[in-house]
Amino acid sequence: MLLHGPNLNLLGEREPEVYGTDTLDDHVGFARDVAERHDLRIEAHQSNHEGQLIDHIHHARGRCDAIVINPGAFTHYAWAIHDALAAFEGPIVEVHISNPNAREPWRHTSVIAPVATGSIMGFGQQGYELAMAAVAAKLA
Amino acid sequence: MLLHGPNLNLLGEREPEVYGTDTLDDHVGFARDVAERHDLRIEAHQSNHEGQLIDHIHHARGRCDAIVINPGAFTHYAWAIHDALAAFEGPIVEVHISNPNAREPWRHTSVIAPVATGSIMGFGQQGYELAMAAVAAKLA
Amino acid sequence: MLLHGPNLNLLGEREPEVYGTDTLDDHVGFARDVAERHDLRIEAHQSNHEGQLIDHIHHARGRCDAIVINPGAFTHYAWAIHDALAAFEGPIVEVHISNPNAREPWRHTSVIAPVATGSIMGFGQQGYELAMAAVAAKLA
Amino acid sequence: MLLHGPNLNLLGEREPEVYGTDTLDDHVGFARDVAERHDLRIEAHQSNHEGQLIDHIHHARGRCDAIVINPGAFTHYAWAIHDALAAFEGPIVEVHISNPNAREPWRHTSVIAPVATGSIMGFGQQGYELAMAAVAAKLA
Amino acid sequence: MLLHGPNLNLLGEREPEVYGTDTLDDHVGFARDVAERHDLRIEAHQSNHEGQLIDHIHHARGRCDAIVINPGAFTHYAWAIHDALAAFEGPIVEVHISNPNAREPWRHTSVIAPVATGSIMGFGQQGYELAMAAVAAKLA
Amino acid sequence: MLLHGPNLNLLGEREPEVYGTDTLDDHVGFARDVAERHDLRIEAHQSNHEGQLIDHIHHARGRCDAIVINPGAFTHYAWAIHDALAAFEGPIVEVHISNPNAREPWRHTSVIAPVATGSIMGFGQQGYELAMAAVAAKLA
Amino acid sequence: MLLHGPNLNLLGEREPEVYGTDTLDDHVGFARDVAERHDLRIEAHQSNHEGQLIDHIHHARGRCDAIVINPGAFTHYAWAIHDALAAFEGPIVEVHISNPNAREPWRHTSVIAPVATGSIMGFGQQGYELAMAAVAAKLA
Amino acid sequence: MLLHGPNLNLLGEREPEVYGTDTLDDHVGFARDVAERHDLRIEAHQSNHEGQLIDHIHHARGRCDAIVINPGAFTHYAWAIHDALAAFEGPIVEVHISNPNAREPWRHTSVIAPVATGSIMGFGQQGYELAMAAVAAKLA
Amino acid sequence: MLLHGPNLNLLGEREPEVYGTDTLDDHVGFARDVAERHDLRIEAHQSNHEGQLIDHIHHARGRCDAIVINPGAFTHYAWAIHDALAAFEGPIVEVHISNPNAREPWRHTSVIAPVATGSIMGFGQQGYELAMAAVAAKLA
Amino acid sequence: MLLHGPNLNLLGEREPEVYGTDTLDDHVGFARDVAERHDLRIEAHQSNHEGQLIDHIHHARGRCDAIVINPGAFTHYAWAIHDALAAFEGPIVEVHISNPNAREPWRHTSVIAPVATGSIMGFGQQGYELAMAAVAAKLA
Amino acid sequence: MLLHGPNLNLLGEREPEVYGTDTLDDHVGFARDVAERHDLRIEAHQSNHEGQLIDHIHHARGRCDAIVINPGAFTHYAWAIHDALAAFEGPIVEVHISNPNAREPWRHTSVIAPVATGSIMGFGQQGYELAMAAVAAKLA
Amino acid sequence: MLLHGPNLNLLGEREPEVYGTDTLDDHVGFARDVAERHDLRIEAHQSNHEGQLIDHIHHARGRCDAIVINPGAFTHYAWAIHDALAAFEGPIVEVHISNPNAREPWRHTSVIAPVATGSIMGFGQQGYELAMAAVAAKLA
Repeated sequence: MLLHGPNLNLLGEREPEVYGTDTLDDHVGFARDVAERHDLRIEAHQSNHEGQLIDHIHHARGRCDAIVINPGAFTHYAWAIHDALAAFEGPIVEVHISNPNAREPWRHTSVIAPVATGSIMGFGQQGYELAMAAVAAKLA
Repeated sequence: MLLHGPNLNLLGEREPEVYGTDTLDDHVGFARDVAERHDLRIEAHQSNHEGQLIDHIHHARGRCDAIVINPGAFTHYAWAIHDALAAFEGPIVEVHISNPNAREPWRHTSVIAPVATGSIMGFGQQGYELAMAAVAAKLA
Repeated sequence: MLLHGPNLNLLGEREPEVYGTDTLDDHVGFARDVAERHDLRIEAHQSNHEGQLIDHIHHARGRCDAIVINPGAFTHYAWAIHDALAAFEGPIVEVHISNPNAREPWRHTSVIAPVATGSIMGFGQQGYELAMAAVAAKLA
Repeated sequence: MLLHGPNLNLLGEREPEVYGTDTLDDHVGFARDVAERHDLRIEAHQSNHEGQLIDHIHHARGRCDAIVINPGAFTHYAWAIHDALAAFEGPIVEVHISNPNAREPWRHTSVIAPVATGSIMGFGQQGYELAMAAVAAKLA
Repeated sequence: MLLHGPNLNLLGEREPEVYGTDTLDDHVGFARDVAERHDLRIEAHQSNHEGQLIDHIHHARGRCDAIVINPGAFTHYAWAIHDALAAFEGPIVEVHISNPNAREPWRHTSVIAPVATGSIMGFGQQGYELAMAAVAAKLA
Repeated sequence: MLLHGPNLNLLGEREPEVYGTDTLDDHVGFARDVAERHDLRIEAHQSNHEGQLIDHIHHARGRCDAIVINPGAFTHYAWAIHDALAAFEGPIVEVHISNPNAREPWRHTSVIAPVATGSIMGFGQQGYELAMAAVAAKLA
Repeated sequence: MLLHGPNLNLLGEREPEVYGTDTLDDHVGFARDVAERHDLRIEAHQSNHEGQLIDHIHHARGRCDAIVINPGAFTHYAWAIHDALAAFEGPIVEVHISNPNAREPWRHTSVIAPVATGSIMGFGQQGYELAMAAVAAKLA
Repeated sequence: MLLHGPNLNLLGEREPEVYGTDTLDDHVGFARDVAERHDLRIEAHQSNHEGQLIDHIHHARGRCDAIVINPGAFTHYAWAIHDALAAFEGPIVEVHISNPNAREPWRHTSVIAPVATGSIMGFGQQGYELAMAAVAAKLA
Repeated sequence: MLLHGPNLNLLGEREPEVYGTDTLDDHVGFARDVAERHDLRIEAHQSNHEGQLIDHIHHARGRCDAIVINPGAFTHYAWAIHDALAAFEGPIVEVHISNPNAREPWRHTSVIAPVATGSIMGFGQQGYELAMAAVAAKLA
Repeated sequence: MLLHGPNLNLLGEREPEVYGTDTLDDHVGFARDVAERHDLRIEAHQSNHEGQLIDHIHHARGRCDAIVINPGAFTHYAWAIHDALAAFEGPIVEVHISNPNAREPWRHTSVIAPVATGSIMGFGQQGYELAMAAVAAKLA
Repeated sequence: MLLHGPNLNLLGEREPEVYGTDTLDDHVGFARDVAERHDLRIEAHQSNHEGQLIDHIHHARGRCDAIVINPGAFTHYAWAIHDALAAFEGPIVEVHISNPNAREPWRHTSVIAPVATGSIMGFGQQGYELAMAAVAAKLA
Repeated sequence: MLLHGPNLNLLGEREPEVYGTDTLDDHVGFARDVAERHDLRIEAHQSNHEGQLIDHIHHARGRCDAIVINPGAFTHYAWAIHDALAAFEGPIVEVHISNPNAREPWRHTSVIAPVATGSIMGFGQQGYELAMAAVAAKLA
């Protein structure tokens, strides 16, 4: 399961000097292609609602092997997503297109990282490729 | 009105060593039984959406006598729920199955407590029994 | 676009000594009248859901000239709304009916202010009149 | 064992708008009645001396089944009581008549909570009833 | 009474990309015009001396109906101005040409806001128009 | 009632360069003489036990007209004394022989001051004279 | 020399429930009477200007025997007054009419206290009487 | 003089995985044996009362050559013991059976250390042997 | 250039439950194999000396295309390495075998991240594979 | 322009062990001599008034080539001087006779340094010589 | 293995009022003599290089039975030494000649203590004697 | 002795907009020329190793008259260099080419300044000229 948090539906439009010009569809399509090379199938969701992301995470339990999540601004305060992910038994990879640690101070804290298997930050679209590779290796 | 916040639909499955093996339905059923002994009727809702919980709280105004709420992780940052509860005129009881003060530091802060009539933490399922008794006494 | 955040649907009922006795409809109607005097039309939404407010902000892009937002308690922690507003290209006015700086400490921080064109706090209903005037001038 | 910390001997006299008009004897008598309904017997002590409370807690080891403690102002800094309670093997219930989280900031920290089985705050005299019920259930 | 604090005599010269090219006289003249439309008369002072601003505020007591103040850098530490304003019985409007919350961290704290009726920040010259309208409404 | 906290029984022996060479008896005798001039009688206690000081304060209720207290090191952390004093209805004067603000940082905080009528610090033995005069005036 | 800081010229008018109804002239006259009883003469100044207070303190060097100062809000941030007082060789007494420790948190810090011989807080007009007695004793 | 603070009377019973299985009597007996080898005699006291420990420390003045103290939880907040020890003129050795720096954060601060000649932590019963050797050498 | 910081020469021996059983040579060999698949050659260094790591980083300037660095404990305080990396013009990837955010608080701060192109944490040996892929893509 | 802040008119009298025995006139005369060697002329002002220093800085705009300022205690909190200096277009040199970093903690922060071209601290009178040389070089 | 950190090669020369007049060789020789009495042999190293100390610690693995370390100023920030010591399986004793807790605040934190078996501070040369005795007992 | 800390060997190459285009050799050559004019000879060292800088400082004892040090990033955390400098008996001048106070917050703290005779910051190459003049004057 590939999850995107708030405002990521605007990818390609919002602050392209930070996030690049690829749209969310481009990123998901790209991730899907990479996933297929690893014999993985992707179920992708984007939501601006903290609750819907939690619902998706719950729904992934016992049905998906891994979660790749780009939580957007929820990264920094949504402890309820932290708890939801803590209840998922497979590997969890946190992905950020930009490098939050090189931006505003409030983006330096991640409430997601403590329950993630690992984090990949700052590689743009390639981050999804790395995440898929990471998932494939964890599941091998 | 008995409200449950995010991830509590997973009760019985998630971290049973912390939360026990009873499901949310078990807890609600138990609370319903206790309530009846106090001649109270329960309307129960669970949601992973901060907004839906606020809607429920608003809907309780003028219709329910009291609110018993287990806000889950929203306890620690959802000031909007704080404000919604502040607009409710009856008694409000905050219930936690585990004792948040004995867990991670970020669980030690409650933004709900300042507007609650009282709080009950750490008694497992019995917490609901205590909460119902508290409500019954306040309404007597 | 005129946006109201959580609990503002209770205006006129909740803490009238702080927020006055006008309802949200009164405020919106008043704002609409003022707007017409400036040859502006208002599209108004209220939501208790952080995600829906983000959806509305996204939907305003390329369609509305300005956003006037009273974010309620989301003012103090909803960084995802901050990011959504940052992606809107027109003027953004943050309005508060009461003066948050004269209330509890946690109401002194605004995560919205850094992306707002300006803020108007503490003038009651008149704040909407001031906001409309501000928008009209910015758009002139 | 039912323990009361400093200044609680003044209950009924000190700040009745916060603590009510019942005296400590009223509270203990009430608790005793409730306890009997649960087939529990209460041994009650009040002290303004941190050391005496520690002595009482030590003396309860292997002799009492549970401790219900209202630590008064010691709640906020008496780590030696924390250590004493940590050495007690039965359930420990922290009770506060008022809701400390709704009062001065220095009353928001509890050094007792981390070693308590649970906490009950803000229910006035009824808090003792709830505490006895909690103890009875834990011991059942 | 319209008060301007330190360095605002340089308006139009200092950091025009932040404060615009209008001089203090332009702003005061503009405010005077707006005020007349509301049947208000303005007495304007600028000073780089904390003490003089306090003297002016004292002098306004019982003689002026309202105070509109742009305290410049004194906003962030001049508690003596806070105390002086607290002794003024009419409405007080804090105005900032730029949006301090969008600048350096030390500009995010206002020791003036707790005693102001309201604050208007980030609207450039229009801020004075909004402030006059606010005062007129408060005095109506 | 004249109360002295921990270690003040060593006055005249401990750090004479800070506290002078007068013994506690000297100070109490001196205070008694001054008090008589104001037609006041003194009941004096010294204790190294926080609990005994609280007991003395309770015992003063309804029996003594005022409390003069030099709390020694308890000044900086003994919130239970704070609560005890808050329950005393007469004037309370906090006295320090030395000036704690000119010493180590941990001596700069007083948990007693918020419930004292007033504080007198740094005048050596004369502090007792000033305190008696203050009490006499308050009771006049 | 008797110095009064900012806003104290409003004594008797500003927040009488905190500061009483005596005017500054009343306080100075009262202090003058008391001083005469101790064979002391008073030179009194009030200023809302930090710089003027410093000038007065400098001018007192070698000419006045002691300084009694009520620094008003400058108490909390005016380090330049701290430095000026540090250069005065006689006794310095800090006086506050109200008890700052029982008010807002920012009034709990005194940058003056570290260079004062002693402090007297919370005794209203009587504080001046006590300060004069303290000075007389120090000079005796 | 060998002093033990609160809860140390439970040594051997409380948390044996941290403190070992030796009782306080075992430790004191062991220390006594070691002391005799150094021609030292031990007077030993344990108390859960901060005030009694202070009394003991005062009583040691001019009668005992050195103090060895294991202050238990008082280590972290009992400034009055700090002041009492500061008034003792001989060597003072702080001993801890466990290594507080390897435990909870609140155990990392010692208010005793600044007045101790030296500290010995983490060596279990042997810590008393080392402390006796240290005292013997200091007194030699 | 592949750099390893202090204690990483012990990989495979130190805390295998955290870092796994592969030695540093295993990791470097593995990274070398992966690099070759991307047509990259690796120059690898490990040092326990902050200065040598800085020397290596300087030496990489104009000679290596990218730096992959696992800074070990230097991650948390070695600002001099931060400055050295800031002077390198190619991509920089920070790799951690474990997830520092899930360990002690002092491991949550990275002084390296602000100058890194991106960070990969928590994937064990696979982290090097991901880092090589990231570098290859950045250089493509 | 050579500016001196509060209390520096006392140079030579106040704390000579910190500031030396030269008077302000000595320092200014010395600076004037050095300046002439660099073909610079000095206009010197000292003031204990923050506002006058700001007035002087404004007056220097377009008339003086550089500002050398020893802000005294204003160094640590006078943000209005910071803003005034930020509006000066020539080089600005901050000079301190003593080394503030080796004194009390509150002297370690400079609100002036961020807008200064450079700072020279701790060299006594020679600091003025160095400052003049620095200014001459910047203007060359 | 007996390790000394930075600047300890200057022992006997640097601040003799703090560290005494014995040189490092004196201390090592003394420690060697004591060690022989316990049938221990000492391998001693001093280094001003963090990296060399880490190398020595690694080299001690599997070859030395215990480490006695006086880390000098590295005590307060060298987390890499912390990690190196954590990988050593024998007892580790931290020794300080002076008592860091009685000196500057930045010397109150030890990053070494959490991984040390125990700490001995403030006993001068005798600290080495105590450390050897502690090691001998741990190894017995 | 003229010492340069980490990364300063890259001067002229690294961030020329901050540090200028002169190389370290240029700066040292320039300093040497200036020194000769003052009849001083320079022994210059640069190192990226904290330990080597400490070795150099030790080696300067009794052989060099003064130390001029640009500690680079070590300025902000290398307490061991602080201790080494504290053991040097001649004047110590801290030089920075840029003005650290106008850069990132972590560059605002200097652990070197408390032991320096004085500091010179922000004057580029000229800083060395000023430092040499300062040293010459101190040694005269």
